[in-house]
Amino acid sequence: RKESFKVDHFGFDVNLTFKQRYLVANQYWKKENGVILFYTGNEGDITWFCKNTGFMWDVAEELKAMLVFAEHRYYGESLPFGNLSFTDSKHLNYLTSEQALADFAILIESLKKNIPGARNSPVIAIGGSYGGMLAAWFRMKYPHIVIGALAASAPIWQFMDLVPCEGVQWISEAFHLCNPLRSQTDIIVLKSWLAETWVNLAMVDYPYSSDFLMPLPAWPIKEVCKYLTDPNESDKVLIQNLSQAVNIYYNYSGEANCLNTSQTATSNLGIQGWSYQACTEMVMPICTTGISDMFEPQEWDFAAYSDQCFLEWGVRPRPLWIPTVFGGKNISSHSNIIFSNGALDPWYAGGVNENITDNLVSIVIPDGAHHLDLRARNIDDPQSVLFARAKEVEYMKKWIEQFNGHH
Amino acid sequence: RKESFKVDHFGFDVNLTFKQRYLVANQYWKKENGVILFYTGNEGDITWFCKNTGFMWDVAEELKAMLVFAEHRYYGESLPFGNLSFTDSKHLNYLTSEQALADFAILIESLKKNIPGARNSPVIAIGGSYGGMLAAWFRMKYPHIVIGALAASAPIWQFMDLVPCEGVQWISEAFHLCNPLRSQTDIIVLKSWLAETWVNLAMVDYPYSSDFLMPLPAWPIKEVCKYLTDPNESDKVLIQNLSQAVNIYYNYSGEANCLNTSQTATSNLGIQGWSYQACTEMVMPICTTGISDMFEPQEWDFAAYSDQCFLEWGVRPRPLWIPTVFGGKNISSHSNIIFSNGALDPWYAGGVNENITDNLVSIVIPDGAHHLDLRARNIDDPQSVLFARAKEVEYMKKWIEQFNGHH
Repeated sequence: RKESFKVDHFGFDVNLTFKQRYLVANQYWKKENGVILFYTGNEGDITWFCKNTGFMWDVAEELKAMLVFAEHRYYGESLPFGNLSFTDSKHLNYLTSEQALADFAILIESLKKNIPGARNSPVIAIGGSYGGMLAAWFRMKYPHIVIGALAASAPIWQFMDLVPCEGVQWISEAFHLCNPLRSQTDIIVLKSWLAETWVNLAMVDYPYSSDFLMPLPAWPIKEVCKYLTDPNESDKVLIQNLSQAVNIYYNYSGEANCLNTSQTATSNLGIQGWSYQACTEMVMPICTTGISDMFEPQEWDFAAYSDQCFLEWGVRPRPLWIPTVFGGKNISSHSNIIFSNGALDPWYAGGVNENITDNLVSIVIPDGAHHLDLRARNIDDPQSVLFARAKEVEYMKKWIEQFNGHH
Repeated sequence: RKESFKVDHFGFDVNLTFKQRYLVANQYWKKENGVILFYTGNEGDITWFCKNTGFMWDVAEELKAMLVFAEHRYYGESLPFGNLSFTDSKHLNYLTSEQALADFAILIESLKKNIPGARNSPVIAIGGSYGGMLAAWFRMKYPHIVIGALAASAPIWQFMDLVPCEGVQWISEAFHLCNPLRSQTDIIVLKSWLAETWVNLAMVDYPYSSDFLMPLPAWPIKEVCKYLTDPNESDKVLIQNLSQAVNIYYNYSGEANCLNTSQTATSNLGIQGWSYQACTEMVMPICTTGISDMFEPQEWDFAAYSDQCFLEWGVRPRPLWIPTVFGGKNISSHSNIIFSNGALDPWYAGGVNENITDNLVSIVIPDGAHHLDLRARNIDDPQSVLFARAKEVEYMKKWIEQFNGHH
């Protein structure tokens, strides 16, 4: 379904509207003491997130829940200016997390008004990764609209001070690169492509064969590491091994003729949109030391980063804005947010991994990769994720009970 | 003092900055367990609010407080585009409550960073009227920045459904009008000028001679009503009596040669700015019945209101936005806000006049007009305002204690 929204919620000069897409499933919904589970869409096509968030489907019956998946503006089909949306900083001006949260707030008010029986239904926000940040921030800023939030693998504390970096230098043929390396820049791109591959692999180190960022075997890190056991091999063999390791991620299906260093994940992700967001609000400092991590040392160089952003998008990032508007580490006055994180996930370090208060709780999943808890039930799920999901449902039931007690 | 701020906190295309004015008094401030009392400036010159908020000066020593008065953008000297600020809807696009709150947040962060010893100081927001709304909303949206808020005479619930209206038809000479009535429009203007006069009088019905909206005697409503005792007089006498009554408000000093129906209060108020805000976010429905009030019946006609706004400013109001973004009546998940209201104040009805939770409390001042509690101590203060102020200080001390207990 689609709904019309203001392009600019925070100014009155631009009075344009655009169509935002959202998906609704209400076969499990019970008007009496049911709930609306609302997925706060992140940087990609909402149908893809819908398919990869089986958890919501798995708990729908138990919670008598209506499921709503809302697409984030500037992603999927929700483009405020159609094909012109990414043309310049003027058209991109309305791509911010605050605008997206306002879209969600207004969508929920509209659903409550227009779906018979929904008016007094409690709503819980659910999201993973950037969508998890949005779920948490949504509860913080609009607690009158959602009674709580499940923020899975949401690195909301990645904005202050943290780290990853770059790889080593390789040869085009060994990697079957689609475009052979030509310049120093190509080498930098290759290295960052490799580094991103390891990070992505860790994010989707799921206990069963899956197809989130790429089609992969169960526990893909283990598969990849099989090729990387002996650091004493010759350089040539090391490179060949590395190439085979990378192939697990990029060519598990065996259908790729060559590897393209400009693509590191599914095309369902809105690369352009996220690149702009990373150049404006979503400034998440990343650096590596080569000592406490497996990457080449690389400092966080904000000036260079800002220059690159200006070159690419005509905008300068504002690194302090997100902590200012969403509270940074000082969020204890909020309530009813679950922060879940998988300890296998590279983003784990930027997340909330300790209870802040009784109502602002952390769930750590030792065997979990990037928001494994949001995925559908699977026979190979480790015990720790089953436990996490049960805890999550328990908290949600408590919020719903509290809400019903008040109304 | 002045500080540079982004003109647009919610978009990255416009990277301009402007100078925001603020006043600081730190003679009473103690770095150890002191506090920063932060006045969230409203629709006017900040020096005028500073002079009329004696309460903050009166409690500064007891609370070891630094006082900060921040000017609201587009008022006083804080004009984002200088003299061009009001030229069109493009220049006015950044006049919203959300932008103003972001200014305050960033100003506080900057003060904490730059004033030695302020880094860990708790901050309490204080404001009256629209400034009171801002103080309450500031605590709701930025609880990591202010530990609590005193929202005096803040009609945050005026956005849903309420009421005042218009007067009767009179003659130019009897009122000593500067510009004689000529058209139907002039009569409408006169009537609304009269009605606004009564409302303003009630707002400043203070127990001692004061000079907030106009120079006035103590309990001005009593003075005015002396002329309005007998409704059975002839029309002519009634008009003459009314003229004398109005003179209390507009010419207590005796210096005015004629009365100007286009001015109803001090020029310290930013009439233009508020008119734009009322045409965009601050849509506060007002209507009168002639039965439950003393005014002519007048329905709330949103369509006409919207058309008038479009004519005047080129923008259309969004009446649902403020309840959506700030929670409407559903604000119980927030904390540490005092809503104080004077029962003599016409805005009383739009305020929060019952405790919502233990931490979201109401203080009603039966003998109080518009934020009397924020004014300086006075020998003629009624007992009820002394009691209110003592309660307010008590709550603030509790917040500071809580804060210090955590840090």
